[in-house]
Formats: sequence, structure tokens, C-alpha cells
Amino acid sequence: METDTIAAISTPVGEAGIAVIRVSGPESIPIVDTLYKGKASLKEADTHTVHYGHILEPKSGDTIDEVLVTVMKKPRTFTREDVVEISCHGGMVPVQGVLEALLSAGARLAEPGEFTKRAFLNGRIDLSQAEAVIDLIRSKTDRAARVAMHQAEGRLSRLVRRLRQEILEMLAHLAVNVDYPEYDAEEMTAQLLLDRVRSIGKEIDGLLVTARQGKIFREGIATVIIGRPNVGKSSLLNALAQENKAIVTEIPGTTRDVIEEYVNVRGIPLRLVDTAGIRETEDVVERIGVERSHQALNEADLVLLLLNYAEPLDEDDRQLLRLIREHSAIVVVNKTDLEPELDVGEVKELIGDLPLITTSLKEERGLDQLEEAISDLFMEGKARSADATYVSNARHIHLLQQARQNVDDAIRGIESEMPLDMVEIDLKNAWESLGEIIGDAVAEDLIDQIFSQFCLGK
Amino acid sequence: METDTIAAISTPVGEAGIAVIRVSGPESIPIVDTLYKGKASLKEADTHTVHYGHILEPKSGDTIDEVLVTVMKKPRTFTREDVVEISCHGGMVPVQGVLEALLSAGARLAEPGEFTKRAFLNGRIDLSQAEAVIDLIRSKTDRAARVAMHQAEGRLSRLVRRLRQEILEMLAHLAVNVDYPEYDAEEMTAQLLLDRVRSIGKEIDGLLVTARQGKIFREGIATVIIGRPNVGKSSLLNALAQENKAIVTEIPGTTRDVIEEYVNVRGIPLRLVDTAGIRETEDVVERIGVERSHQALNEADLVLLLLNYAEPLDEDDRQLLRLIREHSAIVVVNKTDLEPELDVGEVKELIGDLPLITTSLKEERGLDQLEEAISDLFMEGKARSADATYVSNARHIHLLQQARQNVDDAIRGIESEMPLDMVEIDLKNAWESLGEIIGDAVAEDLIDQIFSQFCLGK
Repeated sequence: METDTIAAISTPVGEAGIAVIRVSGPESIPIVDTLYKGKASLKEADTHTVHYGHILEPKSGDTIDEVLVTVMKKPRTFTREDVVEISCHGGMVPVQGVLEALLSAGARLAEPGEFTKRAFLNGRIDLSQAEAVIDLIRSKTDRAARVAMHQAEGRLSRLVRRLRQEILEMLAHLAVNVDYPEYDAEEMTAQLLLDRVRSIGKEIDGLLVTARQGKIFREGIATVIIGRPNVGKSSLLNALAQENKAIVTEIPGTTRDVIEEYVNVRGIPLRLVDTAGIRETEDVVERIGVERSHQALNEADLVLLLLNYAEPLDEDDRQLLRLIREHSAIVVVNKTDLEPELDVGEVKELIGDLPLITTSLKEERGLDQLEEAISDLFMEGKARSADATYVSNARHIHLLQQARQNVDDAIRGIESEMPLDMVEIDLKNAWESLGEIIGDAVAEDLIDQIFSQFCLGK
Repeated sequence: METDTIAAISTPVGEAGIAVIRVSGPESIPIVDTLYKGKASLKEADTHTVHYGHILEPKSGDTIDEVLVTVMKKPRTFTREDVVEISCHGGMVPVQGVLEALLSAGARLAEPGEFTKRAFLNGRIDLSQAEAVIDLIRSKTDRAARVAMHQAEGRLSRLVRRLRQEILEMLAHLAVNVDYPEYDAEEMTAQLLLDRVRSIGKEIDGLLVTARQGKIFREGIATVIIGRPNVGKSSLLNALAQENKAIVTEIPGTTRDVIEEYVNVRGIPLRLVDTAGIRETEDVVERIGVERSHQALNEADLVLLLLNYAEPLDEDDRQLLRLIREHSAIVVVNKTDLEPELDVGEVKELIGDLPLITTSLKEERGLDQLEEAISDLFMEGKARSADATYVSNARHIHLLQQARQNVDDAIRGIESEMPLDMVEIDLKNAWESLGEIIGDAVAEDLIDQIFSQFCLGK
């Protein structure tokens, strides 16, 4: 257990009204008190109280900043240690000045995520809750934030704990069977076990079903917009983003760089990758764009293919239509404000079951239907009931799959009448896989790795 | 007087551990309380206490974020109104979510600087103190921060108030003379007045002397580095910045864009403008750089001219040496690690009294001497006594100059035995000019203009 006192700037860097420096550890109150000048000593402060004063440069006695100091005594704090938060003026110089004074007064600069790590190590939150904190901070849409918030509140933890409890009870049952074979209750227990293990398998499956949705909320849908030059790819990007981040231009092939941005489509974060348009070209810069497009297509969760309503299909279009059939794709026939030249029947024939939407981005028509189609593609019926618990973290998904495998092994073991101490091992493995989700018996280097992804001051 | 309740995000935008939303106004506690779920109602909270809880979406009852809420009741607050600060997780979605909930619960989004404006309007700080807050946030060096902090603590205000008090006493004296001429004390009073008015003039002069230094601390020294291509301009910039912001390259003329950055030289913020080098050229891009260099030279407070120790002077160098004689300049002879080809004697002849420093930036020699020379040029002896009060704000300097003019007029009036009621007008003007510094009787639109320069949430 770490017992030194750590400090870091907990707000983003920049010029603003307020910046907050957080100090946590056994010496946090005395350390801040040596620098603080106010009405009374912070050592006499009640917990959860705020104190106006100044932070002084210890050697010169010069004022570094005018501050509000919040004193929070353990255990009712974020880290379960004594915590002091210093609210300074938001410029870099005063904030750095206060931080440096703290460090020279005996605090150590916190590593990224170290406050949350202490909250975990001191048992205030479990690992999945800690991981939710960083998801919440990084969330791109309300739904993503809600998924993270639910996890931070411990919903996933509670589910996982219940499953582990049930496995533990079964293990106890098995121990009775193995240790007291004279009871001769084996047949009955095996059948009972099978039912209960299958039921646990189903519950894990139920969680894994939410994983696709959860990952979508957490990481967004990697979306590429493809189509011939000048068909409206940038316009579509802009229409979706509802702001002008990509350059819209009438010169074919001018969107040369791969632009990436998030847009919020009905709560689903689309991670849009704009491309140079897919076509054969001799232009070097264009070709980089096209190569990137092909690559992006393979990495995409969603492909939006734009066709021009005012031009007949050409070989490029047909090639693209063939390409997207293996993908999660939506065909968007744009420019319906112009005279029709496109053979929509041929398009429908080529794409089979893929959804087709008609739009006039210029006249702002059809975007609603497109958003509806995207939502249909990624939000299954039950996923729309907003309150479900989602598994969103790749580490959690992997551990759930592992636990599912262990449970499967146990089921097969029971069915093939393997010795029950073999089944016991499988169930123990499932119990441990689930335990890693909430940080029970997780190796120290994994913990370090998880928390190092955090931002400084958290 | 404004009496609605305002709210804004007071920390910089970005992903971080903590973001703070500040709410101020008569309804701040009840408004936050409608969204807050914790152990007890915030309405029952003592002043300057911190409360753990959650902010809920009012319609759905969904948790937006886990928060710490600080309740501070008037008058011991930044704005002298009831203030609530909500400390959320630092991501954009939770912070925006909480802010939007506050706005729909009846708070109004604060304008930039509106919190500080309320502090001023409610008499907690005067105008020069309010202006110091934004200087502190924007300060680039410790010294700049200290100058701002002193002003925020009211040092300038106290000086200005004392001067105004003295003028007021003289005005009272004059009133006695004008209203009770039968006392026949005119001669004596005029002499007495003259001494006292002169003494006030001297005090204003004393403040104005600090203006150059104060402005330097506040705005930095606009510094240009000039010299032929490849003489080491980018290397010097980097050596001063101690980090690699400008591209250092061996290809002559590659630093094409004007790069501007601040570096801290012994507490003095140098605002460095890197240029394409001054020389005759046919290259269009280079020419833009050169034209900008000429322009920058005229706008510069400090010119650093680099010469190559390993090459004889050429016409470009001689032209530059002639150019800088009218400026505050330092000549830096670089590349002393190479064989000498430069006629240093000729250089010294050309530059007269300008300082000359020799460096080898490659071998990291001479930089200390250069920094010393810069410091000598801009820090007069007395300026080094760190604790002086500096006038740094252009508005204050202008008002002090105006007051000095009024005092001069008064002195001339007394000397030429003008009627004392004429002198009275001059002194009244001086009193008013000084009053504008601390915001006494300042027009409302000027106040709006001053506070609109603030950042949001301050």
C-alpha cells in the first residue's frame, strides 16, 4: 500500500477562471497548511469545509495565488485518504507555482490515474468502476456517458459479484460431494449442477450480447463515406456533423486528407473517416487518399456509399457496389434535386438486402431517413431500453468470453460424467475470470497498466 | 444591479480529472438543489461546506454525474452573492450535461467575465484588481504573475486611493479659500498648494517609471532574431526556448513562417518572432519572410542580430548592422567553434555602444552572457527589487499620464497666479483620472468592454 502524499493538477491545461490541484495522502493537510495563509490553520479545519486564503512561496513569503482550499478527511473522500483540493486562478503560472510549492513542501507528483488507483487499492471502488471513470471522461455522446456512469455506479460489478457468488455456492456443493462421498448424492448433485451452470452460462451470454452495443457506445462506429469525387461526401459529413469541419468543395478530388471526427447520430457516436473518394487515379496525392480509403473500408464498422442521382452508374460505382456487399453498408443516392440519370433498379439489384436511402443534401432532404437507417442497423430493439447494463470495455468482454468458455468446459465435463474435481477446476477458472473484471486478484502490473491510461490528476 | 443567477464552466475545456461549474446569484443554492441528490438538501447546508452526491437529469431521474458540491453563502464569496461550485468528472459530456441541467433549472449562462464583474459591482474588488485577475491568468512568467498578484491584492489601488485622498484634501483647502476669501490666506495657501501638488506629480511620475517594466512583465518583450540564412537563428530560438518548437535546419532560408513564442529569460517574457532572415531574394516565399522581418524590426522592443564568426562580413550583414543602430539591439557573433573569418573590430566600429556577445550555440556556449545582456537592457537596477508596485496595464498608464497632465496644468496655474477656481478644475480632473483606474465613476460601456476580455467562467 502506498502511503506517501501525492499532488497533481486535476483540471485541463489552459487559461480559465479556475484550476484545481488535488493532494491526497496522510500528509496532505499538513503539507498544504505550511503554504497556506488564512484565518486559521487547516489542521483545525472540519472535514468537507472550504477555506479562503493565499498560498505563499515558502522561502520569500510572496503570495503565489489567492485560493479556496477544500479539506476532506478520510475515509469519506475519493481516495479514502485525507484529500485537499486547492482551487487557484486558472492560468498556467499560478497553477504551476502552487504545484511546485507543494512538491517542495513534501508532496510527490502523482502519476496519471494514481488518485483513482488509490481509490481502487483502498477499496472505495472496484476495477470496473475505476475503468468507467476514464470512459466517462472520454465519452463522446450522452449515451456513452450514461453507459459509463452506470458502470461507475457499480451496475456491472453487482452483476458480476452475483454470478461469482453463485459459482462459489456450487463450488461449496462440489466440495461436499468430493469430501463426503459416503453421502452418495453424486447423481442428484450433477444434474442440479448442470442446470445451475447452464443458467450461469446464459447470464454471461446475456451480458456478452450487450458487448457489441456497449463497444459502439464506448468507441463509436468507425464509419467511412465513399463514392466518386464530387458526389457529396464532404457535404454528407458536414450535414451529419452539423458544422463545417471538413472543406466542402466543387473541385473533384479535393478532400485529400483523411479527416476523422465524431458525430452524434441519435446517441450513437459515429467516428467518421472522410476519404479522397475511391477511384483509379494517376495523381499521387489522390492515390494516397484512395489507398487509405480501401484500408478504411476494411477497418470500418459502417460504410456509407454515395451515388449521384444525376449521373448514370459507371464502372467505379459498380466496383464500389460490389465491394460493399460484404460490409455493413448503406447506399445513399444523393442529388435527387437534379434530373434523374441513375438506374435505381440496377443499384437495388446489385446491393440485394442493403438499405438504400435517397437524399438531396443541397436541399437538406433525406438526412432523417439516413439517420433512422443507421440507428436501425446498430440499435437492436431491446438495446433501445436505455437502462440496460452494457459491457463496453474490451478487457471486460475478453474476460466474460473466457468465463463463458470455462462454464462451457464445466458443462461438457458434467455431461460426459468427468470426475467432479475436474469440473471444480473449470468453475474455479470461471470464478477467477469474472473476478478480474472487478479487480479481484488482478496482477499488479495489469493494474499499473490500466491506470496509466488515465489522465494526470485523476 | 443584476440579480439573476448565472452559471458557467470555470475550468478549461478538455479531458481531465475534474471540471468545475460555478453558479452565482440569489437562486444558486435552490437551483442546484433541484438537481442534486445527496444525504441532505443543500438548502440546509452551512456556508463553505462540501457535499458528495449526484446530479440527476430532472426529467428522467438518470444520473448525469457523481459530484462534489461546494456551498458558499454571501457575503464571503467571490461575487458576494450565494455561490455554488460543482466539481464534476472532467469530460465534455458530463460537464455539458450538468451545465445544461442547470440552465433548464433556471440559471442563465454567464457571459465572459461576468463572475468577476459581479465581484466588482458588488464592491468586493475594484476595477484595477479585477483587471489583475485576467492578467494573472494570462501571465507567462513568475514575475508577470507576481506583478498581477500584487495588483490583485490591491497595492496599486491603495496607492491611487492615497493620491486621490490628498487631492481631495487640497480641494477642500481651496474651497475654504474660494468660499471664505475674507480669511485672506490666499498667498500662503497657493505656496502650500504648489508644494503639495508638485509632490503628487512626483508620486505619479514614480508610478509611471514602473510602466515600462510593468508593460514588459505583462506583455513581454517583442523580440526579433535577424541575420543571414543559416547563421543559427532557429538554433538561438531553440536554445532560448530550451525546447524544439522551431525547425532547425541546415538548408538556408527554410524557416519560412513567422513563428512566435514566449520564452522566459530571467523572469522577463520574451515574445520571440522568428523570421526568414533579412536578405535580397527572388524567392516569393522567402520575400514574404523578409518583408515581415522588416515590419517586425519596426515593431520590436529588442533585436538580436546574429553574425557568423566563420564568414567575413558581407553587404547583407553591413546593411543589418546599419539598420539596428536605431533599435534596442544586441549583436550575437555565433559559431565561435569554427575558424574566425569575421572582422570583429569592424563590427564593433559599426555598432558603437550596442552590446556584442560571442556564442557557440552548437557547443552551448555564450547563452548565459546573452541572457545577462538582455536582462541588463530591460531591468534597471531598482526594478530588480522584486517587491515594487508596477503599473502594467495600458489603460492605467494612460490614466496616470492624464492625471500627470492635469497636475501639470494645476502647477502652471498656481505659478502663473491663475484664479484658484481654475486650479480647482485641474485638480478635480486629476482626481477623476485616478478614480477611473480603480473604477470609480467609470462608464458602464467601458466596464462591459473590460470584462468582455475575460474568459468564460471567471
